[in-house]
Amino acid sequence: MRALPLHDGARGLDDDCAVLEVGSETLILTHDAMAEGTHYRKDADMADVAWKLVATNLSDLASKGATPIGVLLGHSLGEDDARFLEGLSQALTAYDTPLLGGDTVASANPRTLGLTAIGRATHTPVPSRSGARAGDAIYVTGVLGAAMLGFEGASEHLAAFNRPVPLLREGQALAPHVTAMMDVSDGLLLDACRMAKASGACFKLDSETIPVAEAKRFDECIRWGDDYELLFTADPSARLLVPASRIGTVTLANTAALTLDGKALTPEDGLGYSHTNPA
Amino acid sequence: MRALPLHDGARGLDDDCAVLEVGSETLILTHDAMAEGTHYRKDADMADVAWKLVATNLSDLASKGATPIGVLLGHSLGEDDARFLEGLSQALTAYDTPLLGGDTVASANPRTLGLTAIGRATHTPVPSRSGARAGDAIYVTGVLGAAMLGFEGASEHLAAFNRPVPLLREGQALAPHVTAMMDVSDGLLLDACRMAKASGACFKLDSETIPVAEAKRFDECIRWGDDYELLFTADPSARLLVPASRIGTVTLANTAALTLDGKALTPEDGLGYSHTNPA
Repeated sequence: MRALPLHDGARGLDDDCAVLEVGSETLILTHDAMAEGTHYRKDADMADVAWKLVATNLSDLASKGATPIGVLLGHSLGEDDARFLEGLSQALTAYDTPLLGGDTVASANPRTLGLTAIGRATHTPVPSRSGARAGDAIYVTGVLGAAMLGFEGASEHLAAFNRPVPLLREGQALAPHVTAMMDVSDGLLLDACRMAKASGACFKLDSETIPVAEAKRFDECIRWGDDYELLFTADPSARLLVPASRIGTVTLANTAALTLDGKALTPEDGLGYSHTNPA
Repeated sequence: MRALPLHDGARGLDDDCAVLEVGSETLILTHDAMAEGTHYRKDADMADVAWKLVATNLSDLASKGATPIGVLLGHSLGEDDARFLEGLSQALTAYDTPLLGGDTVASANPRTLGLTAIGRATHTPVPSRSGARAGDAIYVTGVLGAAMLGFEGASEHLAAFNRPVPLLREGQALAPHVTAMMDVSDGLLLDACRMAKASGACFKLDSETIPVAEAKRFDECIRWGDDYELLFTADPSARLLVPASRIGTVTLANTAALTLDGKALTPEDGLGYSHTNPA
């Protein structure tokens, strides 16, 4: 897809969002889709699916420090549309994000649902994945693995999987202080590896400092994804106003983009969720 | 969906596009999806499908007199992705519209594909569906029914169905002179009825003046849709720089929103293509 005519604001398709300068404003645009069977189970409550569709897109805006303007929905009609609309309304209301428009189509099952979110940057330059510099500290908000446990049915973690929270305020507070930022959607290791590669640097992670929801399943918690925490790098002396764990240090690029406790990790280690390279 | 929190620019979801004021600029946003089995046949050339996905969205921009800025793609992966990318590249190149971003998802068949197009208004106020006034003349560009004949396999009309042309230049040239404008996607009668209702007026159409691709199938040609011509209203004295046929006159609202040769038409007459009321 990189061979297509790309907008400068597409950032080479290496980022979570497009950045569009319009007059004196900077808009942030993102589109995420969810497919039945891939992103949600056939028996899922469609109110949860609608919530998550909004939340995952707003999480991309959060990782750019943006505030939402509105969304456009690509909806495939189904029997449970009333529940879908209920969850959609809850999410749009919770994050003060109005519907701008969209399209509804008749389609057979399994369905694919899409959402485009548009936001306004609160800080420029807009954080990218590619700005991490040697010497920066690496941070992550929250704990990892809760969505995985929720997916498996653990009652105290159901909300983490079904109703993720886009960290909009945190992203806005962090944007002026980070050198790179993204949300953790596909697993900490995979997303950290992507950020390291985009930045042309090496990310050295220290497992003892990575907060996970279930210690005895550490390896899975840092690979499973769907947590929508913010992963970011900053000067170690930067005063951050958002609670986050320091989980490693950026170093100059070497043969490995990512190390854990000094051991180089490669795609063969199953870094996370990927369409082309499933963990 | 109108019960959801709506952006002011959503125009109550009664228009083809959302209108977003950003600083001194006016952006136009639209999202259209295409589902296999509903919008295209399983055996369709995916290069044509990609072209049409771009063209139908750009046609919505055309109806607002906008010039494209870029698109975001919601793509469901499939075996024929190479052909899809080929058609996508052709359409984006033809209309000088770069890719801003998007998402690719793994999904089972049948697939649904979505596209969000963003444009910049070239004239404000941006034409809406609701501005037609009693006394205005009603116009349509081109001929109607060619896409239907192309869908059926008529060789000289294949392109009309497979590779529709968004009338971007025409829309921009018309925008300063029209009172209402939209593209004809769901059939002339249905779209004219929608415009009449949105404007709180009656549209009186004269069948002898409506240009169709096959005279003996007139009734089908004005109902089938997919032609992406521009339907608009303007003061009868307005000097239009775009070839178009005058097909009727707007009158004050009365019991019927739409008449053809003096006969009131109702939804029971099968006005066009509709998800909830198929012709």
